[in-house]
Amino acid sequence: MSSNPLRFFVLTIFPHIISCYSEYGIVKQAIKKGKVEVYPIDLREFAPKGQVDDVPYGGLPGMVLKPEPIYEAYDYVVENYGKPFVLITEPWGEKLNQKLVNELSKKERIMIICGRYEGVDERVKKIVDMEISLGDFILSGGEIVALAVIDAVSRVLPGVLSEPQSIQEDSFQNRWLGYPVYTRPREYRGMKVPEELLSGHHKLIELWKLWHRIENTVKKRPDLIPKDLTELEKDILNSILSGKSFKEWLKEHKHLL
Amino acid sequence: MSSNPLRFFVLTIFPHIISCYSEYGIVKQAIKKGKVEVYPIDLREFAPKGQVDDVPYGGLPGMVLKPEPIYEAYDYVVENYGKPFVLITEPWGEKLNQKLVNELSKKERIMIICGRYEGVDERVKKIVDMEISLGDFILSGGEIVALAVIDAVSRVLPGVLSEPQSIQEDSFQNRWLGYPVYTRPREYRGMKVPEELLSGHHKLIELWKLWHRIENTVKKRPDLIPKDLTELEKDILNSILSGKSFKEWLKEHKHLL
Repeated sequence: MSSNPLRFFVLTIFPHIISCYSEYGIVKQAIKKGKVEVYPIDLREFAPKGQVDDVPYGGLPGMVLKPEPIYEAYDYVVENYGKPFVLITEPWGEKLNQKLVNELSKKERIMIICGRYEGVDERVKKIVDMEISLGDFILSGGEIVALAVIDAVSRVLPGVLSEPQSIQEDSFQNRWLGYPVYTRPREYRGMKVPEELLSGHHKLIELWKLWHRIENTVKKRPDLIPKDLTELEKDILNSILSGKSFKEWLKEHKHLL
Repeated sequence: MSSNPLRFFVLTIFPHIISCYSEYGIVKQAIKKGKVEVYPIDLREFAPKGQVDDVPYGGLPGMVLKPEPIYEAYDYVVENYGKPFVLITEPWGEKLNQKLVNELSKKERIMIICGRYEGVDERVKKIVDMEISLGDFILSGGEIVALAVIDAVSRVLPGVLSEPQSIQEDSFQNRWLGYPVYTRPREYRGMKVPEELLSGHHKLIELWKLWHRIENTVKKRPDLIPKDLTELEKDILNSILSGKSFKEWLKEHKHLL
């Protein structure tokens, strides 16, 4: 069991975007706790004359990132830290999802090559383990993708979240999406916190949360409804689909309280 | 035809993440050209005692963003700039895609409420027009989602990219994904630029690019293959599926050159 921090190496022409994000929130905490190290690597420092891009062969508007600075930076990381798992951002890459986040959290070193929207010289692909994407939309560069990877991976590393139970409550980790949450004040601009959450009745609150998790999933991501439903989940699901409210359902299920 | 800039208002507890990103690349350019304005709004400034979050009713690990600072900041924006289109980041929200990016680019004002992973008081949803997400993974907060929206939307605004042809060449705007790109040097670590791209033969290059666009789409995103194929596209697609190389195919199609 290694206690080495997970090291992120981010190859970019805007290293300050990466270092700036690392000064806040979960990534800052993960660094402080020694669980994560983030190395923004300025491609310009590995470019012979500071030239990181050039015109594409065959004509194309825009510029293409040159292969040399990327290979030189890669060599530098390999020599000084060991071989990293290499991601490159591409619009058609694998979509980041929680399963991939969990897998990446087991690596020791992750290098992220931030593409630019016009492209990166194809020969770079030889050192790449995985093309990665956030979705079917175009960003001007891969820095935002890198930040998403670093943030999502950092927060699932053991010891980073002060309340690890949070992770189990997450949408995509739990069987169902999250439920609506409320905090003080009890009433704000005429809108009240649901009385069930104020009841202090543990079992009632639990049922309310489960009902609303299922309702949220049915309404917003029916594709995520699990196949192996318990009897209780099946009952709630059918009641929601038949238009019943939680209060109506509860009246018929007082024995559960 | 309004020439007003598109205004982004980002409600966050980490405004510096937003302002930092805006100092680079396409967003900086868009601001400089007067096409975009980015207002990071610190929720702490709208919180009575600087308290932006509180414990959730009904018990849950972590903290929930309070409704008051968000409503107060919203009111401030409405009074000073006019009603914005309001996005909130939620794991189950609509996935950002290029169609949504293009739609958002037509708004005059967009407010993005950066959620925290533990949640935002549900009563905030009353002012929200759309829940938005980057994918099925959990971030510690919505700031990265906000940056993605600002970046992706800024670059499609007319006049922002110096070479607007770039947008048409994009994956997801074009019928097919992009093709592999190359820049100098012609040979690097034994790897050569494909001779077709060096040929200077316009028609040959065009066919090479189309072939590789189709090949890239078939290999990486077969779900995106268009339904209304031209005869040429159909021919190339079938040749790729039967395992033919571009050079082999070209030999049988010299009449196209």
